[in-house]
Amino acid sequence: MTNIKGIAASAGIAIAKAFILEHPDYTVKHTQVEDADREAARLDDALSRSRAELEDIKSRTLQELGEKKAEIFESHLLILDDPELINPVKDKIREESVAAEYALNETANQFIEMFQNMKSAYLQERAADMRDVTKRVLKHLLGLNYVSPSEISEEVIVIAEDLTPSDTAQLNRNFVKGFTTNIGGRTSHSAIMARSLEIPAVVGTQSILSSAESGDLIIVDGLEGLVFINPDEDTVAQYRDKQEQYAKQLEEWSKLRGEPTITQDGVHVELAANIGTPNDVTGVLENGGEGVGLYRTEFLYMGRDKLPSEEVQYNAYKSVLEKMQGKPVVVRTLDIGGDKELPYLDLPKEMNPFLGFRAVRLCLDRQDLFRTQLRALLRASVHGDLRIMFPMIATLGEFREAKGLLEDEKAKLAAEGIAVSDRIQLGIMVEIPSTAVMADQFAKEVDFFSIGTNDLIQYTMAADRMNERVSYLYQPYNPAILRLVKMVIDAAHKEGRWAGMCGEMAGDPVAIPLLLGLGLDEFSMSATSILPARSQISRLSEAQMQELASKALELRTAEEVVELVESTVSQ
Amino acid sequence: MTNIKGIAASAGIAIAKAFILEHPDYTVKHTQVEDADREAARLDDALSRSRAELEDIKSRTLQELGEKKAEIFESHLLILDDPELINPVKDKIREESVAAEYALNETANQFIEMFQNMKSAYLQERAADMRDVTKRVLKHLLGLNYVSPSEISEEVIVIAEDLTPSDTAQLNRNFVKGFTTNIGGRTSHSAIMARSLEIPAVVGTQSILSSAESGDLIIVDGLEGLVFINPDEDTVAQYRDKQEQYAKQLEEWSKLRGEPTITQDGVHVELAANIGTPNDVTGVLENGGEGVGLYRTEFLYMGRDKLPSEEVQYNAYKSVLEKMQGKPVVVRTLDIGGDKELPYLDLPKEMNPFLGFRAVRLCLDRQDLFRTQLRALLRASVHGDLRIMFPMIATLGEFREAKGLLEDEKAKLAAEGIAVSDRIQLGIMVEIPSTAVMADQFAKEVDFFSIGTNDLIQYTMAADRMNERVSYLYQPYNPAILRLVKMVIDAAHKEGRWAGMCGEMAGDPVAIPLLLGLGLDEFSMSATSILPARSQISRLSEAQMQELASKALELRTAEEVVELVESTVSQ
Repeated sequence: MTNIKGIAASAGIAIAKAFILEHPDYTVKHTQVEDADREAARLDDALSRSRAELEDIKSRTLQELGEKKAEIFESHLLILDDPELINPVKDKIREESVAAEYALNETANQFIEMFQNMKSAYLQERAADMRDVTKRVLKHLLGLNYVSPSEISEEVIVIAEDLTPSDTAQLNRNFVKGFTTNIGGRTSHSAIMARSLEIPAVVGTQSILSSAESGDLIIVDGLEGLVFINPDEDTVAQYRDKQEQYAKQLEEWSKLRGEPTITQDGVHVELAANIGTPNDVTGVLENGGEGVGLYRTEFLYMGRDKLPSEEVQYNAYKSVLEKMQGKPVVVRTLDIGGDKELPYLDLPKEMNPFLGFRAVRLCLDRQDLFRTQLRALLRASVHGDLRIMFPMIATLGEFREAKGLLEDEKAKLAAEGIAVSDRIQLGIMVEIPSTAVMADQFAKEVDFFSIGTNDLIQYTMAADRMNERVSYLYQPYNPAILRLVKMVIDAAHKEGRWAGMCGEMAGDPVAIPLLLGLGLDEFSMSATSILPARSQISRLSEAQMQELASKALELRTAEEVVELVESTVSQ
Repeated sequence: MTNIKGIAASAGIAIAKAFILEHPDYTVKHTQVEDADREAARLDDALSRSRAELEDIKSRTLQELGEKKAEIFESHLLILDDPELINPVKDKIREESVAAEYALNETANQFIEMFQNMKSAYLQERAADMRDVTKRVLKHLLGLNYVSPSEISEEVIVIAEDLTPSDTAQLNRNFVKGFTTNIGGRTSHSAIMARSLEIPAVVGTQSILSSAESGDLIIVDGLEGLVFINPDEDTVAQYRDKQEQYAKQLEEWSKLRGEPTITQDGVHVELAANIGTPNDVTGVLENGGEGVGLYRTEFLYMGRDKLPSEEVQYNAYKSVLEKMQGKPVVVRTLDIGGDKELPYLDLPKEMNPFLGFRAVRLCLDRQDLFRTQLRALLRASVHGDLRIMFPMIATLGEFREAKGLLEDEKAKLAAEGIAVSDRIQLGIMVEIPSTAVMADQFAKEVDFFSIGTNDLIQYTMAADRMNERVSYLYQPYNPAILRLVKMVIDAAHKEGRWAGMCGEMAGDPVAIPLLLGLGLDEFSMSATSILPARSQISRLSEAQMQELASKALELRTAEEVVELVESTVSQ
């Protein structure tokens, strides 16, 4: 029996035989050819076979997993047709008289390297997409036999170096009980897909592929991030138990679906979900979300070649509001810039994009695009309980300016005779230290706060959360963060406003007791975290958590805070 | 009479005739040659003439302006001898059979472009140096007649597109009464040189070169950033008055040189200076500095090809301590990374260097270099009142770890029988929001705080201070900043520690009344700001400034704070 530690990527326990998913050898040699036309034709043929395959996968994904998951293959199709990739390949074939596979591989690698050197998570994902597409075309050019995971027809644990988005989309949940990979992290494509498919997964094990053989018995513990190879009988028995307990827990949690979230001492808090597209609302409702605490509107602007029209936006906002049936929906206005780029906006490269021209800073400058979004939101407001919030507000001046534009568009719509709700709450993200420190003054002018911990932590600690060399400073439990959170909540309550949180921290079982104690009104998290959070909160007493939080505020380090929580609260 | 607005780069008023300093035309054509050897020889000849010139300028600068100013020409000499520049030029001459001037120009431009694209202020300055050196060599290759500013022999105002470091170093203070340029900002080379030469200067006028002609009467108002061309008699008279008043003010200030800094109501504060090298101490003492509040040790690590030895560092620290004759000297340990790079450390490129692996973060990882610096500091401590501070401390854990290394080196030195002072104060820079928020806890473990406002503002507002698109957010007077400063000062006093400030803000006449009111103990600034600050503080009452500060803390915007200060305090 071997056991390997990895990263818990998707909760649950799976026990089954190993299916080793090894990708074929795509090695390409530098081959000179005489007939360049023939190579160009071979390329075209391989491109059209790849296109057909992708269309097929895309439509299957669309049916089984919805629009958002299918978008990945849409972007693969765009890469296949991109003249900026294909023309240089054809030029290379002709100019250097080389085989199509060589020309493709060299050209694509240049793009991949370029994307990777960008050190932006968004562009690095583009590199992954490009690699995926290149492999698919190479497979046809090289005439490789590749057993696709979609052909699996018995219960297995899939073991691989990594799973590409196409691999994951082809996994059949009836047969693939779990998977585990050598590389990847909690936010890699494969991890996100696993959670959305609800398949237990452990990623980033580094050695699973060299340790397991086809047919070995495997246990994947997606709760603890452990993988067992050929476990002994006791271990198997123990894990069958654990599997059963987890199933019971899921059932237990599912009973909380329609329930409110109430502490032991009767205090009600609101559990909402973070979403990216209208399709995500289904998951919110299935998981008992009491609202949408953060609708990230960036996705509307991505994966297209120009700004989305007012109509496109209006329909998206309306759709979310209608599906949420009167429950609150907090829409964050465009937060682009930083690590999220839009090619068609042609923003200047910045030395420190996280400290740069992004979000509301860009919107106040590019009023054209901001006004379009505000109009679409105002028009949609009649379809539900719309709340609008501005991201990256650092000063009251910025808030007043943004609010002025909103009022302006509201007046224009009124003049045009278009109905707008008169109950729209207007709030801000608190993700910049200055705003947390000035929350008492902001509270006199805004309707609500939503604390964005991902950015608030990175700015408060002056540490890029994407930079591994300073990742030790990404400390949600640092007393400095708790003190800022407290300032925001106290300031809101003093003026009769509400304070929510929509960063990763809001769904974190170690943070929840502290946040409850600090008086947070609304917790917005991944949809799948809602039921476990509701269950946890129902076992806590707010009064006791207030005591816990007071103690934590006087501690000196994040480690001391974690110790305190773990010794006080049974998880 | 024309008047033009520019940037006040160096204080004072100058009135004299215009001397237009126009640089020769360095345009280079793509010329093919047959005899590549001859071109290589021409290049060598031009290089050696340039070398001789630079040696001459360097030694004159060294005599007249000291070591630090001469360093620029040292780095020019290094560029001249750099095989990474010269070899590609020679290769190009041979491989492409082109003229030496063309090969040099093309190659140098590639380097310049590369440096400029780095978007780091440090590397952009390297681009300026490279451009300067290239022009000098081209001048010899092209046989150009260039009238050097060193040949000026009557009283003039020098007018130019920009002044290169070599131009500025050649200005003779007896004849050059002032200068004004089209480009540049307050921190450009020419501005820094002007202040150090105490020549009034206005830079960044954009149009002075096209507006003035040789022999025009010019007034340079380096206080307000104004330039007058052929002013009428009234204006001249008015400016002669202003010139006289400023001379009186300088004399007035100079009387404060040996005085302590005491408010109207008898409160003493300490005015110290920020320095970069031991040579800067002369300026500190001449300007009546009561200590060194920030000795930036980075310069010891720059402009060389490997880490400075313990001995090199020991001598530098010892020299500063000795020259300061027992006055306090706060030495900041290495703050490299961010926008300051060291080629020989080979640090990885980061997406957000200001939020990255810099300063103490790097030192805790690269303990070899950190321990060397700590040893050098400890050994030097017996020569004066040494205070050590760590930059970029974000958590108590980091401080404890850094302190542990210091204690460790202290114990080793004791074991070696080497004397170390037992009165070394150990403090931290407060420049990260988390540390300001946690100042009460830090105050229990450190001896002092020094608030680094340049970084504290940039992190608190989440706005890169080098990025023009978000420069509106660099708000020293934002109440959020004042509140954080107050937290730090109050925390220090509660534990009987002292709190200083060594950012730009400490010498700013608008900030000084507020900082005095908040209870700041030590103000560390550019040496030339000390006497004006002492004069200002002697006219203020601490009690009244406390009232002012209390009001400012309750305002909502930076603009309101500035208004309050301006309406309360006569400047």
